[in-house]
Amino acid sequence: MNQNIIIIGAGPCGSLLAISLAQKGYQITLLEKRPDLRKTDIAAGKSINLALSNRGLKALSNVGVSQKALEISIPMLGRMIHPIQGEPFSAQYSGRQGECIHSISRSQLNGVLLDECEKHSNISLIFEADCTQYDYNSNRISYRNSEGNEIEMVADFVFGTDGAGSIMRKKMEQNASQLLFSHSISYLQHAYKELTIPATESGMFAMSENFLHIWPRGTYMLIALPNLDKSFTVTLFLPMYGENSFESLKNTKAIEPFFTTQFPDALQLIPNIVQEFQENPTGILGTVKCYPWTVQGENLLLGDAAHAVVPFYGQGMNASFEDVAIFTELVTENENDIQKSIFQFQIERKVDADAIADLAVENFYEMRDHVSNPVFMRKRKLETLLEARFPYYSKYSYVTFKEDSPYRNALILGNLQDQFLLKFCSENTDTEQYDLDMIYTELQHFIASQNKPNYV
Amino acid sequence: MNQNIIIIGAGPCGSLLAISLAQKGYQITLLEKRPDLRKTDIAAGKSINLALSNRGLKALSNVGVSQKALEISIPMLGRMIHPIQGEPFSAQYSGRQGECIHSISRSQLNGVLLDECEKHSNISLIFEADCTQYDYNSNRISYRNSEGNEIEMVADFVFGTDGAGSIMRKKMEQNASQLLFSHSISYLQHAYKELTIPATESGMFAMSENFLHIWPRGTYMLIALPNLDKSFTVTLFLPMYGENSFESLKNTKAIEPFFTTQFPDALQLIPNIVQEFQENPTGILGTVKCYPWTVQGENLLLGDAAHAVVPFYGQGMNASFEDVAIFTELVTENENDIQKSIFQFQIERKVDADAIADLAVENFYEMRDHVSNPVFMRKRKLETLLEARFPYYSKYSYVTFKEDSPYRNALILGNLQDQFLLKFCSENTDTEQYDLDMIYTELQHFIASQNKPNYV
Repeated sequence: MNQNIIIIGAGPCGSLLAISLAQKGYQITLLEKRPDLRKTDIAAGKSINLALSNRGLKALSNVGVSQKALEISIPMLGRMIHPIQGEPFSAQYSGRQGECIHSISRSQLNGVLLDECEKHSNISLIFEADCTQYDYNSNRISYRNSEGNEIEMVADFVFGTDGAGSIMRKKMEQNASQLLFSHSISYLQHAYKELTIPATESGMFAMSENFLHIWPRGTYMLIALPNLDKSFTVTLFLPMYGENSFESLKNTKAIEPFFTTQFPDALQLIPNIVQEFQENPTGILGTVKCYPWTVQGENLLLGDAAHAVVPFYGQGMNASFEDVAIFTELVTENENDIQKSIFQFQIERKVDADAIADLAVENFYEMRDHVSNPVFMRKRKLETLLEARFPYYSKYSYVTFKEDSPYRNALILGNLQDQFLLKFCSENTDTEQYDLDMIYTELQHFIASQNKPNYV
Repeated sequence: MNQNIIIIGAGPCGSLLAISLAQKGYQITLLEKRPDLRKTDIAAGKSINLALSNRGLKALSNVGVSQKALEISIPMLGRMIHPIQGEPFSAQYSGRQGECIHSISRSQLNGVLLDECEKHSNISLIFEADCTQYDYNSNRISYRNSEGNEIEMVADFVFGTDGAGSIMRKKMEQNASQLLFSHSISYLQHAYKELTIPATESGMFAMSENFLHIWPRGTYMLIALPNLDKSFTVTLFLPMYGENSFESLKNTKAIEPFFTTQFPDALQLIPNIVQEFQENPTGILGTVKCYPWTVQGENLLLGDAAHAVVPFYGQGMNASFEDVAIFTELVTENENDIQKSIFQFQIERKVDADAIADLAVENFYEMRDHVSNPVFMRKRKLETLLEARFPYYSKYSYVTFKEDSPYRNALILGNLQDQFLLKFCSENTDTEQYDLDMIYTELQHFIASQNKPNYV
């Protein structure tokens, strides 16, 4: 435990990692570029809420803060689909009791974790520490502090939890050919913008708060998650260019007609839509993949720095928290041999990080389109029934509720299940006639038959 | 035809593009960073030979230089496999007469194309023109000429045929988030080194020259291609790190024992192995993917600049030449609307560029390992028989000999065929008993059954 550790980035991932390693007795310096978010005016920042689910909760539970997180979150039991015409209808996330996801403010959760960091005397938490240099050979870093002075530090291990724009990853990219550091960034052609549905005049939620609301419209969609203050954060996903795009809506006169046509019920709930649309930033969406995550076992990329994903499975933060849980478990197994744990971690975790990245892109197409497709809706209903009766997990449930099963299973088994069930539901339209026992048995046979042997 | 075109990079792809567009009457400036390779001492440079095949030949034929290329090439009819023990044995590339690949010197072929460029008065060919700036908004470029002066030029269209390290691609990467420019580089953990088997004392080839020689050894391999001067260029592919790696062979005492154990017959033919091993550079192997290939239809990445691949299918140059053939055909179809052709080109070509990139990585595993596997050898024999009797194309033949079928078909159909035939050959060991008509019919049924409908 005489080893010194620097963690770059005190977001949710970095602060959870600091707590986890501090609890093992390590000496931690936790550097954060931004000011303390608990002391800045929240109104000035963006209000981002996230969907916390089982994988994230398990990691929080490991360090004893899951209860605190749940106290500031709102359970969402399923999706509430808003068609263009007709009433909204709901689809629960799981056929099992109690399986739900939790809407939580990113900054409030981060605040809980920072509070927890400050309870540990072996965590030195430094805000406004802007990391300017990092040398992976010597593990020497430089940061500019709040007074503008350059400070140098050396550590036995340095962790990069500094998000999609990670300085540690950039340093590795700069020497990619020498390190054989493969890396990619893949952008969606869709971007996003956050809007607000405020609480009603009587101080109530304007819609049912126990759902993730979706307005699926083919090439674009709107979603809304509830906040503790009875507002909803609304996110519009729209192509960047072309017809009905952020580019075409730069003409402010086009904004209201677009919403009137496409999202009439939502428009009524967003009073300042034109102003918000103009003032709020347009964000882009990308997937970051890279490998290896360490140079020689003395540094490690974790969370978004190693594997930033698009938000459509609500798993970015959950995957980052799961990174921390898995890494910490390896350190325990390896009796505090951190270098060995770093090498093991990247080998074990890479395939799952790739799986959730690909699942998240796939789910974009599902959310914006398939959720209102009749075949998909029958399949969704059938899966809920299967989950209620059998030890069955839909792809969504594998990702979201089955924290003891790695993401790769969701990708492989989930897609095989979908292939079988979508075929079945396209050929059998009357859900009342579904024979669940027969379907479940045939599904098991189908999956077993697809485990292809390797003939070579 | 009043439009001015700049082409950055006068390698094989850029010089072929210049000829193609010059034949249509465009005014071309062709910039090359290096000195004229026809005037530099060949002995000072690396001797790289490549396998020219149908796709490349078709593109060369379009501009009337395929015959000149064939005159400086050596046909290779198949692979000659060298096991550790026992005699070498051959496996032909195709069951059809006349289907072969052609070993050719990269620099000699480039020289043929540059000679052809100089026959066109509307091509201005400038060597030692090192492109230092490129602005895709204005299509303004700067280059440093041989006297060290900075020259500025503007063109209607600028083509980036400047290889895997393309400056045009780098400019697009630098503004990736603004352009939504997705890009990746993926390195193999294997690197390569070129060695030489000289002509015999009596001035003959030291091995049969009409084969691509392979010494497959699991995690590493050696290959050799014939040169016009009766030598062979030998390439060793070996892991960069670990046991039996370029790292472990930095100890020069380890080189000869490694070859004695693994490549005893080759060692006898490489007289200066220790010296060559120390003096020749170790090259790395990577796949570059990116998209889009243009910003606003006024520039275009082509060849390795857009899609560098690993060399294991011998398709890097062929794919680049095919780019030129497809693009030129689009310009003809679109009656010289280059902008329209650029947009169409990237949409049509991207999926095939990705396919050959993935096929090339797959073939690495096939070459270094599977070619000496009994099941694979039975399958190879069976495919040769099928090709001789039916309009059947193995995956290799799709890639190499079926220039009227895009790479995507090789990937999809080739892998389905392999799946079926490897299963068959693993279950049926006596090739004398194979019923070709039955196998071919069942194979067709299998492939038809795998064309899955989209149920959603």
